[in-house]
Amino acid sequence: MNEYILKISSSDEKGLIYRISDVIFKYRINIVKNDEFVGENRFFFRAHLEGELDVKAFKGTLETMLSDDAHIEITSKRKKDIVVLATKETHCLGELLIRQFSGEFNANIKAVIANYDVLKPLVDKFNLPFHAVLAQDLSRQEHEEKILECLSQYEFDYIVLAKYMRILSPSFVERFEGRIINIHHSFLPAFIGANPYKQAYERGVKIIGATAHFVNNNLDEGPIITQDVIPVTHEYSWQAMQQAGRNVEKNVFSKALDLVFDDRIFIYENKTIVF
Amino acid sequence: MNEYILKISSSDEKGLIYRISDVIFKYRINIVKNDEFVGENRFFFRAHLEGELDVKAFKGTLETMLSDDAHIEITSKRKKDIVVLATKETHCLGELLIRQFSGEFNANIKAVIANYDVLKPLVDKFNLPFHAVLAQDLSRQEHEEKILECLSQYEFDYIVLAKYMRILSPSFVERFEGRIINIHHSFLPAFIGANPYKQAYERGVKIIGATAHFVNNNLDEGPIITQDVIPVTHEYSWQAMQQAGRNVEKNVFSKALDLVFDDRIFIYENKTIVF
Amino acid sequence: MNEYILKISSSDEKGLIYRISDVIFKYRINIVKNDEFVGENRFFFRAHLEGELDVKAFKGTLETMLSDDAHIEITSKRKKDIVVLATKETHCLGELLIRQFSGEFNANIKAVIANYDVLKPLVDKFNLPFHAVLAQDLSRQEHEEKILECLSQYEFDYIVLAKYMRILSPSFVERFEGRIINIHHSFLPAFIGANPYKQAYERGVKIIGATAHFVNNNLDEGPIITQDVIPVTHEYSWQAMQQAGRNVEKNVFSKALDLVFDDRIFIYENKTIVF
Amino acid sequence: MNEYILKISSSDEKGLIYRISDVIFKYRINIVKNDEFVGENRFFFRAHLEGELDVKAFKGTLETMLSDDAHIEITSKRKKDIVVLATKETHCLGELLIRQFSGEFNANIKAVIANYDVLKPLVDKFNLPFHAVLAQDLSRQEHEEKILECLSQYEFDYIVLAKYMRILSPSFVERFEGRIINIHHSFLPAFIGANPYKQAYERGVKIIGATAHFVNNNLDEGPIITQDVIPVTHEYSWQAMQQAGRNVEKNVFSKALDLVFDDRIFIYENKTIVF
Repeated sequence: MNEYILKISSSDEKGLIYRISDVIFKYRINIVKNDEFVGENRFFFRAHLEGELDVKAFKGTLETMLSDDAHIEITSKRKKDIVVLATKETHCLGELLIRQFSGEFNANIKAVIANYDVLKPLVDKFNLPFHAVLAQDLSRQEHEEKILECLSQYEFDYIVLAKYMRILSPSFVERFEGRIINIHHSFLPAFIGANPYKQAYERGVKIIGATAHFVNNNLDEGPIITQDVIPVTHEYSWQAMQQAGRNVEKNVFSKALDLVFDDRIFIYENKTIVF
Repeated sequence: MNEYILKISSSDEKGLIYRISDVIFKYRINIVKNDEFVGENRFFFRAHLEGELDVKAFKGTLETMLSDDAHIEITSKRKKDIVVLATKETHCLGELLIRQFSGEFNANIKAVIANYDVLKPLVDKFNLPFHAVLAQDLSRQEHEEKILECLSQYEFDYIVLAKYMRILSPSFVERFEGRIINIHHSFLPAFIGANPYKQAYERGVKIIGATAHFVNNNLDEGPIITQDVIPVTHEYSWQAMQQAGRNVEKNVFSKALDLVFDDRIFIYENKTIVF
Repeated sequence: MNEYILKISSSDEKGLIYRISDVIFKYRINIVKNDEFVGENRFFFRAHLEGELDVKAFKGTLETMLSDDAHIEITSKRKKDIVVLATKETHCLGELLIRQFSGEFNANIKAVIANYDVLKPLVDKFNLPFHAVLAQDLSRQEHEEKILECLSQYEFDYIVLAKYMRILSPSFVERFEGRIINIHHSFLPAFIGANPYKQAYERGVKIIGATAHFVNNNLDEGPIITQDVIPVTHEYSWQAMQQAGRNVEKNVFSKALDLVFDDRIFIYENKTIVF
Repeated sequence: MNEYILKISSSDEKGLIYRISDVIFKYRINIVKNDEFVGENRFFFRAHLEGELDVKAFKGTLETMLSDDAHIEITSKRKKDIVVLATKETHCLGELLIRQFSGEFNANIKAVIANYDVLKPLVDKFNLPFHAVLAQDLSRQEHEEKILECLSQYEFDYIVLAKYMRILSPSFVERFEGRIINIHHSFLPAFIGANPYKQAYERGVKIIGATAHFVNNNLDEGPIITQDVIPVTHEYSWQAMQQAGRNVEKNVFSKALDLVFDDRIFIYENKTIVF
């Protein structure tokens, strides 16, 4: 039996669930699980469906039953294709490589692109394409064009920033709207910007965190997917905080990717709905 | 506008959500939020409804649409009435009294019954009936009959055990099936039985916890509502663990009561579904 | 046997622990527990001592053994005296009242002062002095003078801000340097300023927190004592976040007060060392 | 400058810290950090020292200053040598491999020994010796002898069980007393024994955990190093719990190994003191 994820968002009105479940019933497929949320007059619905489905016809019927502003997505359950962008750090990339190797990861890493070549030996171990697109002697725009060129060789659902330490331009971000996921090394919105661990150390915080978010045009301001924290003490230098932070970074990153790749997330304005 | 909580559990079959939302639609009430879960071929559905409703007729229509084994509950949103049983400790009872005083608590404490009179001065401050039903010179059965007599003066939805340190008899528990909530001073199923903090200390654990659960006839074995933990170290004596544990106990207890009083829990066999 | 807490901070040099433990040994008292930390060339030492001690002579001897910049504090273990400042909210104040009632609290509440009279009925229950110092028709300075006048009736070790919603002036803060403890309704340094829950909601965060800190002249910028967080979801309105936040606020507050009242904290520049 | 870790445990008496710091002072080395704890009349002391040290002479002097039952350990700070035992699962082993690759791991993996050959491709990627010691057609004792033979090729400080799913015999455990570290897939002492995730699912727990401990002769009963938990819900099948549990397992494991390899742990009777 096939499995599908149905995601609908629309302006809220009475009877939406009735109309949707009517269509589902008529197409004789089963709802394994459904979630629904209404916030600020916007309706969000996700159903995990099981059965044989003519996706095109099913979507067409749903469209006739729902208002014009409804956004309908039907996806066959499948592993997502991703390209990873990285810089020099191994902890997040390593986590993805090991998870892919173990077969537990709901994604296929098509390639790793980095602005240094430090990670090549690690990626090579897993027989995946590695592209070092060095930024030296290039303007930001020239470098990004090379990255785009490199990306154009692959078909992918998402770009995953595994500690990619360069800022992406608005035009790059727009091109992949809602499809770039970043791990930020702080508990946003605290310590936005450079060296958050040093900032955290200076401030004498007792907890440090990490935030996984979609990337939009405002640096560190995209819709948050998930966050977590760990305790630290006065004994931690900023380097020790950074070291400790790596663990929470990779865990938050890994969890966020699971949620995205399982089609559990709606982006609405600058927030996420996570089912 | 009125608010209702609809809870349905039944054996699973295709089209249940369609049939339920059809009825809801025809009664012209609005679904603010709904949750659904299917596990081990059992279907659980909860909806928060808004509108004017003829509850009896609505329930009747739902019954005709669902199978015979369906269990349907419709509750007007309202504060629950509770009786608190306690012994000597203040932390859980104090939490309830302060929350009730603040107006944030989704319950009315009708009375406090205790097997000691230690807590009388605290309960008196809040002008609530306090009954000391001392166990001295009484058999377990005689004592419980006095508790029952005392309870019979009150109408209540739930009995809440705020560190009530006596075991209830099977006949008592059966009489209030699914209506007695306990806070257990350990992370069940570890350290079942007497002095779990001493057990935890002897074992050298690095985390202690608390468990809120419904009471059934197997001591410490009822359906778990919620659990939480806190870290401890080798520096903790068992008394220090107990002291630290009080905080997690009262937090877990308070959170569990919120879930129960907001009609978010299904009990099924020996587990809970928590929406 | 008497118990003492010895706290020493000084610039770091070789042999400090030897010299200190030499003095302790010669005064024939026992070290139950000691902690030591060196950071940025500053030495911090705390010992829990047991025995009979001529405190003045002991301190004098330590002074001759240590450098001029050493700061030495010796305190008999005792409950601290505190005055609580509050506004309208019950959760933090209620926590202190219940803990004091239970005998578990390492402080005596001498009085509660508030800028509204809302909390009078709660404080009255516990037979403690309550002063409503209303701000109406008063300038900030006039109001603060009245608060000071009210405070002058009491001898106290610490001023505890249990959700006191007014900003204290620099001259007030200086007068009680290192002796004012605040609970801030956010995970500092995120969401500084007014209505942090609304800010958190707008930002779509997945975790909210609370921070207990000493008050200094920079609003929300004083040395952090402890912090904690709880998860939230897209289902939380900002009011629901606020409600959920109250629990973490009171827990963080309560834990921070325990640390302060047990003489476990050093303030150094804008940070704390917590033993 | 060299760095050393000094660990002393002895029966408690007055003046121990004075005597120890006297010796340290006379050897003209610096204490970077020291921790001390007294519990049940046993004294535990750990100091991080910096300087040039004649270790043998220093230890000799300490021995003359302390009672006969004192246990004194002085270690140069260095990476520990370990052998990893595993079975089929990748998450814990993968974590170690990535951490070693990144240079952040305070240990050298000398070899991986497994009772299946499933993990060979993963270990080969990192150019480490992999030994498949299959148990087929062998008695428990015969298999263990082959493991011992394999181990005898390596010099190592610790044996690390990265989800090694076979029980070690008492004679094996005794031979490496205090040198075998295990990750147990549950929050001990709950769910001891086989398939703890299935047990946890049946019990309807709301939290699952993991425990890292030293191995002794009672299965799952050795001294606990560290523990952690993650929340689960009714939506988790036991397989989903297992999947979720892998993350907490590898994090707890990794943290415990850091503590052990940094010489932060004392084992005393069946507990640990963790500095």
